[in-house]
Amino acid sequence: MPVYTPPARETAFILKKVLNIHQLADVPSFAAVDEDLIDTIIDEAGRFCADIIFPLNAAGDHTGCTRHADGSVSTPAGYPEAYASYVESGWGTLAMPEELGGQGLPHILATVVEEYLNSSCHAFNMYPGLTHGAVAALASTGSDELKELYLPKLVSGEWLGTMALTEAQAGTDLGMIRTRAEPRGDGSFTINGEKIFCSGGEQDLTENIVHLVLAKLPDAPAGSRGISLFLVPKILPDGTRNAATCGAIEHKMGVRGSATCVMNFDDAQGWLLGEENNGLAAMFIMMNAARLSCGNQGLAQAELAYQNAVAYALDRRQGRAMGARPDAAAVADPIIVHPDVRRLLMDARGFTEGFRALILWTALQIDLSHGAADADARRLADELVGFLTPVLKAYGTDRGFETAVAMQQLFGGHGYIAEWGVEQIVRDARVAMLYEGANGVQALDLVGRKLARDGGQVAERFLSMITADCDAADAELRFITAPLAESVAEMREAGKWLISAAKSDPEAMGAGAYAYLQMTGIVAIGWMWLRISMVAHSDAAHPFHAAKLVTARNYALRTLPETLVLRRRVEAGGETLMAIDAEAFRRD
Amino acid sequence: MPVYTPPARETAFILKKVLNIHQLADVPSFAAVDEDLIDTIIDEAGRFCADIIFPLNAAGDHTGCTRHADGSVSTPAGYPEAYASYVESGWGTLAMPEELGGQGLPHILATVVEEYLNSSCHAFNMYPGLTHGAVAALASTGSDELKELYLPKLVSGEWLGTMALTEAQAGTDLGMIRTRAEPRGDGSFTINGEKIFCSGGEQDLTENIVHLVLAKLPDAPAGSRGISLFLVPKILPDGTRNAATCGAIEHKMGVRGSATCVMNFDDAQGWLLGEENNGLAAMFIMMNAARLSCGNQGLAQAELAYQNAVAYALDRRQGRAMGARPDAAAVADPIIVHPDVRRLLMDARGFTEGFRALILWTALQIDLSHGAADADARRLADELVGFLTPVLKAYGTDRGFETAVAMQQLFGGHGYIAEWGVEQIVRDARVAMLYEGANGVQALDLVGRKLARDGGQVAERFLSMITADCDAADAELRFITAPLAESVAEMREAGKWLISAAKSDPEAMGAGAYAYLQMTGIVAIGWMWLRISMVAHSDAAHPFHAAKLVTARNYALRTLPETLVLRRRVEAGGETLMAIDAEAFRRD
Repeated sequence: MPVYTPPARETAFILKKVLNIHQLADVPSFAAVDEDLIDTIIDEAGRFCADIIFPLNAAGDHTGCTRHADGSVSTPAGYPEAYASYVESGWGTLAMPEELGGQGLPHILATVVEEYLNSSCHAFNMYPGLTHGAVAALASTGSDELKELYLPKLVSGEWLGTMALTEAQAGTDLGMIRTRAEPRGDGSFTINGEKIFCSGGEQDLTENIVHLVLAKLPDAPAGSRGISLFLVPKILPDGTRNAATCGAIEHKMGVRGSATCVMNFDDAQGWLLGEENNGLAAMFIMMNAARLSCGNQGLAQAELAYQNAVAYALDRRQGRAMGARPDAAAVADPIIVHPDVRRLLMDARGFTEGFRALILWTALQIDLSHGAADADARRLADELVGFLTPVLKAYGTDRGFETAVAMQQLFGGHGYIAEWGVEQIVRDARVAMLYEGANGVQALDLVGRKLARDGGQVAERFLSMITADCDAADAELRFITAPLAESVAEMREAGKWLISAAKSDPEAMGAGAYAYLQMTGIVAIGWMWLRISMVAHSDAAHPFHAAKLVTARNYALRTLPETLVLRRRVEAGGETLMAIDAEAFRRD
Repeated sequence: MPVYTPPARETAFILKKVLNIHQLADVPSFAAVDEDLIDTIIDEAGRFCADIIFPLNAAGDHTGCTRHADGSVSTPAGYPEAYASYVESGWGTLAMPEELGGQGLPHILATVVEEYLNSSCHAFNMYPGLTHGAVAALASTGSDELKELYLPKLVSGEWLGTMALTEAQAGTDLGMIRTRAEPRGDGSFTINGEKIFCSGGEQDLTENIVHLVLAKLPDAPAGSRGISLFLVPKILPDGTRNAATCGAIEHKMGVRGSATCVMNFDDAQGWLLGEENNGLAAMFIMMNAARLSCGNQGLAQAELAYQNAVAYALDRRQGRAMGARPDAAAVADPIIVHPDVRRLLMDARGFTEGFRALILWTALQIDLSHGAADADARRLADELVGFLTPVLKAYGTDRGFETAVAMQQLFGGHGYIAEWGVEQIVRDARVAMLYEGANGVQALDLVGRKLARDGGQVAERFLSMITADCDAADAELRFITAPLAESVAEMREAGKWLISAAKSDPEAMGAGAYAYLQMTGIVAIGWMWLRISMVAHSDAAHPFHAAKLVTARNYALRTLPETLVLRRRVEAGGETLMAIDAEAFRRD
């Protein structure tokens, strides 16, 4: 019963009209990117996702994964065949470097494919989803021997990678891990410990699984400065089974087709990646990729929910229109005639279309950070990606979930029933706010590391780019430039307040961090709506463009003003939050 | 693993200090209510819920209900015994009229018990939960014979009542129902049709089930003016089985212990309640009771989620405090030291404590609408209940769900795992936004029926009561009177705008309805925080009172300003919502 159509026209509009990525011939990875290639990838990825992956989504939620007595794990029916097809079609290698066996295309195109995969089946995409980060970490920190042994098969997808970081007592605070690594004397290490929340820690899609495991060396310093990263394969180079086994699968709210494993490392053999006690840096290579992917999951779930809500709103007839009745002879009108239903749908358009532009714009900055001709341009792009990574992760997954909930609302009671599929979307979307650093941690990353550490310089670069676009825009776009400029001013003031608080009152900074992150998300998406409007305005008679301008106006009217309240929340400080004794929070 | 402590101290504070219900001796139902009785009911209801009902919650979610081949339904293990205990303890009869066999106590005390029951096990409370409305509808519309046959056993809880309203094609728009009723000539009717979403339509708790069924008589007018309400018992007065059977149980996102039945009426025998074609009026007697109960479910789920989050935040250690470290020797501090964790908890306190006051204040108005000595006072109380019913239902369930989601967030990845219980709270809380009139419908009820129809008179009475309290409050409470007065002014202006729109542009009214409902919820809870503050301020050195004042300040700083944005949303009108062609909402 659930439906999904890859939003090809939306994607193409952003890539070709807003970002003009076919005109970036001076960036090496874009050399072969012309309009035909863009269309081909959008069409073929869309077809693959709609035909092969989307049919897995509902069934896999129902059956989940099964752990057998020997510790092996069965993924839902159809997953192994679909994964084989994914590997054969080369979707995983699109943006992998050519020297590693990839296709060398820009990251932005892989980001499109990733959205479609996540809309089609978030749980399925968890398996290949972490491999990109594992490849990046291995490529940048592994020895030549390790790279030779593992990279080609990880790149091709013949093997999959995992992140084994979290332990029962150590999540956000990875400095508290207890997993131990002891040198064997042959250059390898013996790993002992238990990891939880390992997505795809065991599965039946690939013969080998490459675990990237955080552990502590003997006499390592306490805390996060004493953790190291190890490569621990399921199958050792000599073909024997390593002692890395799945002890249990978690029962989760959603993404049930993804096997979330408790992994036991019992004298397992592993190899150090990067320097001793510098594992956190290596891990962040994976983690940043995963965080951006989370944002894309928020988009993907919101898009899927939106499409199902639209199909329902056009089909379901209840009540009569307040204005003109589209079908006077019928006993009731489709519920899309009701303003309150439209409100939900228009807000969903404002988020999905604007956030897709932001995700793709950010993906483009990643490509530019590697491939722009000018060193300053590379550095700026890299800084902007760093600044926006926590925002895309947290604001994108929050709003992705909220959009799924709003779309479920439009179904009334039917939204609560499994057969319509929308309750699954809500359950699945929820996870992205929690994993890869819970969203509150993203806000501290944004304000503590990205905003305050450089005195707000990158934030100011970001805001000045928006101001420049506001200044350059046609006067007829004042409907968005005026409120956007207002929100930019609010965000700037909130940022100054936080930078000052960071010096004198860190708790006040922590108290305001989340609201600042939300402001940044609202402003960044508002900026994208300005850029979309600039394109649409040039040919406003076209219905697709006209709809973009309406959606931009709706975003400007209903969403941008939220920055007013958020600034007040930032500047409310931490005093009322911290005043009550911890124990007094309990009820009695 | 989940925990629940009935919040006795919170309840007692509202009843005895804020509402002073033990001083209402001139209202007959309060004659016997003294401080001891209040304490006894709070304590005994709390013990019953904690000991007997709460243990059902997690297990019932896991097993759900089972429909057998003969159409009978098994509720989760322990439900029948717990229900028998509920009946024996008399919790259901607390506020039932003495002449019907009830205890004749005020509705406000039954509302307290209802909160605790819903926190303990929302799914379980679905079974007795609809009976109060069924009793009210039957008592006010049934013939003497029907009342004699059914009321005593419904009041005692020996039998349970259901609402059989919705059909596959008719939910919000009940005028579209197809179930037919034909007179048999003996005063009874033959009922044919299929109803969906009948909570407790079949169960193994009671021998008989009394279905209140909406159906159409032959030659009934089209639409909602042609529906009639019938009483259709599972077991007929002669002891034979009526042809009202469960065809299926829905698979739902949550409240899985509640059997949501498809009910088939195949030449079932029924009796008319009230007048022919006037079923909607009779149904609204039930429905309004159910809507207020939904608000209480929002509170109950938020309270349960809050308590579990507090327990986790005090126990879970990750990272170090930004300020003073409560335990310098430990490797990490409990996460309740972190401002962003506190932010989530303080917002949850602001909602649960303020909304509990609002729910109880409204329950008191129900009691006053029946029992106040003065006719004007009765009428005002009734009008205020009518005005606030959609607000309590929609704003209360929205914020109840959002609070559950926020509390889940505090658990990080563990919040997504079934064993912690918090993901169940989120799934369970979701339903109350959808049933008994989806929340968007509540907003139209508020603005279309309650605000615009009387030109805003009741709304103005409501606002003037708040203004009077602001004026009467001590100057030291300016921290809340000032922002509350600002929000009152915003709400007044938004209301005027909507009343004007209702005349000229109904779609603009529909477009702004939801934001107005949200403003009303924020202001009403803000008012309760003012009233709480007035009590707490009189003895501010007491830690419980001091915590109330901090929470009021936090609400004033962080939540009340939302009305600024909501007024903008109201006044944004409907143009951007209605501009795009319906078919253009589809993706391609």
